[in-house]
Amino acid sequence: MTELMYSSAVPVFKQMLGGLDDVLAKAEAHAAARNIEPAALLQARLYPDMFTLLRQVQVACDFAASVSARLAGVEVPVFEASEQEFADLHGRIARTQAFLAALTPEQFAAAASREIITRPGTPKERRFSGQDYLLHYGLPQFFFHVTTAYGILRHSGVEVGKKDYMGAY
Amino acid sequence: MTELMYSSAVPVFKQMLGGLDDVLAKAEAHAAARNIEPAALLQARLYPDMFTLLRQVQVACDFAASVSARLAGVEVPVFEASEQEFADLHGRIARTQAFLAALTPEQFAAAASREIITRPGTPKERRFSGQDYLLHYGLPQFFFHVTTAYGILRHSGVEVGKKDYMGAY
Repeated sequence: MTELMYSSAVPVFKQMLGGLDDVLAKAEAHAAARNIEPAALLQARLYPDMFTLLRQVQVACDFAASVSARLAGVEVPVFEASEQEFADLHGRIARTQAFLAALTPEQFAAAASREIITRPGTPKERRFSGQDYLLHYGLPQFFFHVTTAYGILRHSGVEVGKKDYMGAY
Repeated sequence: MTELMYSSAVPVFKQMLGGLDDVLAKAEAHAAARNIEPAALLQARLYPDMFTLLRQVQVACDFAASVSARLAGVEVPVFEASEQEFADLHGRIARTQAFLAALTPEQFAAAASREIITRPGTPKERRFSGQDYLLHYGLPQFFFHVTTAYGILRHSGVEVGKKDYMGAY
């Protein structure tokens, strides 16, 4: 149980963030090769009231870090959302990967049954077991933002494929 | 371990397919209210070489069923991909949900260590433990298609939100 809670979170986040990092590198190269302003991709959205590519990447990183931290019972790291360039996003992913790499399976020993409260003190407060929090909230949210970042770039004509999205596994 | 392998697959698929079903119902109502031909949404894509909405939904259902079946060690159900209308997609989701509902946690007792071979006999053949197959292949693939279906509809102006995507949890 312990080992599977760690395995269902940390290595999955690492894999998908690795894929996202590669997808962003291809997008940056695509823009450079065609004299496309990086902002034309970084600020792209699938619809005006959806997040930009840049924000999708930030939020994907935030879910990977915050979900893992809560399950491990350690403080959620705060990375300021000041990114403006592709290089900054690679940096955010690298910081998130370093945070994930420092977590150990032992820290997840109580993760499945740990009580996790989202939006505490608000009308939207929800209480989860750690297991439900990961499977029914954290993973769906994380995959949403990783996939939507990929979708924005595909829609913008960047030549990436499902293989890039999947990362190394 | 057993219980978590089941829990990491079947209830997650059920939740997300429930959300997808609701998203499709809202898309259908959106089209009806604005005299939009259903095909304008069902055949929409984020990019010409990506799958249509219709195909994204079919493939999402296929991953939910095939990943669960392989982990449970039962035959992968074959649902013919003959859908043409929203009603047909609701039917496919319902058939998939019924298949999932019939699986029991006990069938997943050996799932974590069961050997799963994808694309057997081809150059792309891969061997996974059941655990790796679910976490590093099945879930990323499934979430990709559910999220992309949602992204196509958002991009087409259908008024759905993350709450709809998330389903009931």
